[in-house]
Amino acid sequence: MGARPISFLSDYGYDDEFAGVCRAVIARIAPDAPIIDLTHGIERHAVDQGAAVLVNAVPYAPAGVHLAVVDPGVGSPRRAVAVRTATEDRILVGPDNGLLWPAIERLGGAAEAVDISLSALRLQPISATFHGRDIFAPLAAHLARGTALAEAGERIDSESLVRISAREPSIEAGRVVAHVVSVDRYGNTALDLADRHLPETGLRLGRPLEIETVGATYPAVFALTFADVPDGGLILYEDSYGSMALAVNRGDAAADLDLEPGAEVVLRPADR
Amino acid sequence: MGARPISFLSDYGYDDEFAGVCRAVIARIAPDAPIIDLTHGIERHAVDQGAAVLVNAVPYAPAGVHLAVVDPGVGSPRRAVAVRTATEDRILVGPDNGLLWPAIERLGGAAEAVDISLSALRLQPISATFHGRDIFAPLAAHLARGTALAEAGERIDSESLVRISAREPSIEAGRVVAHVVSVDRYGNTALDLADRHLPETGLRLGRPLEIETVGATYPAVFALTFADVPDGGLILYEDSYGSMALAVNRGDAAADLDLEPGAEVVLRPADR
Amino acid sequence: MGARPISFLSDYGYDDEFAGVCRAVIARIAPDAPIIDLTHGIERHAVDQGAAVLVNAVPYAPAGVHLAVVDPGVGSPRRAVAVRTATEDRILVGPDNGLLWPAIERLGGAAEAVDISLSALRLQPISATFHGRDIFAPLAAHLARGTALAEAGERIDSESLVRISAREPSIEAGRVVAHVVSVDRYGNTALDLADRHLPETGLRLGRPLEIETVGATYPAVFALTFADVPDGGLILYEDSYGSMALAVNRGDAAADLDLEPGAEVVLRPADR
Repeated sequence: MGARPISFLSDYGYDDEFAGVCRAVIARIAPDAPIIDLTHGIERHAVDQGAAVLVNAVPYAPAGVHLAVVDPGVGSPRRAVAVRTATEDRILVGPDNGLLWPAIERLGGAAEAVDISLSALRLQPISATFHGRDIFAPLAAHLARGTALAEAGERIDSESLVRISAREPSIEAGRVVAHVVSVDRYGNTALDLADRHLPETGLRLGRPLEIETVGATYPAVFALTFADVPDGGLILYEDSYGSMALAVNRGDAAADLDLEPGAEVVLRPADR
Repeated sequence: MGARPISFLSDYGYDDEFAGVCRAVIARIAPDAPIIDLTHGIERHAVDQGAAVLVNAVPYAPAGVHLAVVDPGVGSPRRAVAVRTATEDRILVGPDNGLLWPAIERLGGAAEAVDISLSALRLQPISATFHGRDIFAPLAAHLARGTALAEAGERIDSESLVRISAREPSIEAGRVVAHVVSVDRYGNTALDLADRHLPETGLRLGRPLEIETVGATYPAVFALTFADVPDGGLILYEDSYGSMALAVNRGDAAADLDLEPGAEVVLRPADR
Repeated sequence: MGARPISFLSDYGYDDEFAGVCRAVIARIAPDAPIIDLTHGIERHAVDQGAAVLVNAVPYAPAGVHLAVVDPGVGSPRRAVAVRTATEDRILVGPDNGLLWPAIERLGGAAEAVDISLSALRLQPISATFHGRDIFAPLAAHLARGTALAEAGERIDSESLVRISAREPSIEAGRVVAHVVSVDRYGNTALDLADRHLPETGLRLGRPLEIETVGATYPAVFALTFADVPDGGLILYEDSYGSMALAVNRGDAAADLDLEPGAEVVLRPADR
């Protein structure tokens, strides 16, 4: 019986050895646990972005241990936690700052949670600043080998876990005020808008709309995919995770419209 | 009997979770298939560059499945394909936009090809924009587990696969007009020139030459390796994949000569 | 009996396929050797930085083969070496330019060393410029499979290995002149100062100090961790590898103080 797979997401980046040292620690404790790096490119300290990527990615990973570290509060009294989800017997490990919450919610909520801040399974001596190496990675490795959650830390009330809630667009007569959640390498720009919001918006597939940013207004089309408009055309589409998003066919919507995470975007059906 | 190894190349970059989610999908379907990331740093949508890197790298990878995704036409009617090569029983999986062609050619041509665009082995529901996750990665995983090509998609004529051909230098009396194929992290600049072109060029190992770019002319030496010239010296050399290339010893040839992929470079023997 | 794990550190970066091709070469020779990428983000040709990261990271990796390539002298007569350490039976593989030395020293010194420059286990044909692929990776793979060091190359005197020594701070009456060793993604700035230097410095935990750079003087506190000061506060702290370091809580010390590797920093207790 091998160890369970461990998926790993962080804001450690690629220039430093932080993610590599965490992988090394896992390999010492659980040599047969496959490690699946989701990304280490989360923007520094961007807990919201990390949470959004994690909730999108985790359902595609094999059920196992899901290690996530975006931890601006390392060294503060924020808790380190391990959480078993109600569905699929997955275990999430990371700081209790909301990073894990959307993924936990997606997986049916928390069936069991422990505080691993003072776990006997931490590396010793423990540093004040690199809990990925000293707490999160070793605990993920032990849990992947089958250690019970109750042996990994102190039972806590799942209700006490820190939550973050996804922003919601505001939908008014004839216009939607949405916000940029994330921008990817291609400049594709995901909004806090989903197809469940659409019936009230007047936005219809195949129909033109207007996108208004702080600086300007742009004509667009609500389409299925990039190729539905000419090169350089702006579309609103449902992205691969089910968010409504903006893209420019073979272009860069975020650059063209000067958008970054948090920016407000107004969408309204074009009169025609 | 374990699954075959899967090499993986893309333009997904490292900031986003795209490559990680594809790895996750593979790990669910073929948990024992080793994944060898070649690079995900191909420039966005640079099919030519991706093809050049793939053909260089694949011969060093164990025979298995070779997943490659540089796919500016995702969502357009371009086909998704899986191709078995005539030699070494390798299987290439990716978009049919020329990305795979040089590697197929290097491996003896296509013995068998299928269109996997509508494969029953895709993930469901399938998105319009992330075919790496929904088509290419799951098919690569199933093929690594031994699924026959004929069960993966619809048989197509290998002759119908999209081809791209490497650019060729033009060789005239006393001068070679070559083009930059790629620039690496060290500024080393590979040209569309190989040693088979050299006999006609008048360029000789150990002899001086002139490099002419749009802006200027530079003295250089045709040498075996960086250390054959002083620090800062410009050399023409045969790089590790057999392309003639420009480098500055402990310097950055691409920066010094202001070169990028596609740029024209004239080489001629120096009178002396 | 599986192969031993191989840790891998380089300055190959992520844009090119160099690290990926080395992984591919290893996978052909030693398919069951786990590969643990420590980082490929070492700054180009930065042997000192690579050595500092390697010595910090290696103790966290499982004992096995430790492949490291930062090799500005590739193509020059610098040797390629494999070294067995006195403790823990670890084998380090890389260029003999000092990169491996601090890690060797940390692991009790060299028990045995061989020159692999002309090893029969190299890939053929061998290039003049990509020894990671042609020498270091294949040798690491063979050694991970259990090939004896004596069969991998020519025995050399361990005393002849190239050494680099860590810089030392100078400690004078009332002031310490230290140097920046490295800056991480978060702007945290490690110095060539360790707690063993502190008794002579007058710097005391919990006490204020002054940090003087070329351009300015900054008030700071010697603290345990980021959260010991308000957001934006500057601290001196012992980092997770035991170096004294500078950080700004939820900020970027290197940017704020305009520091980069090699910069001189003066620290002195604040009068109070």
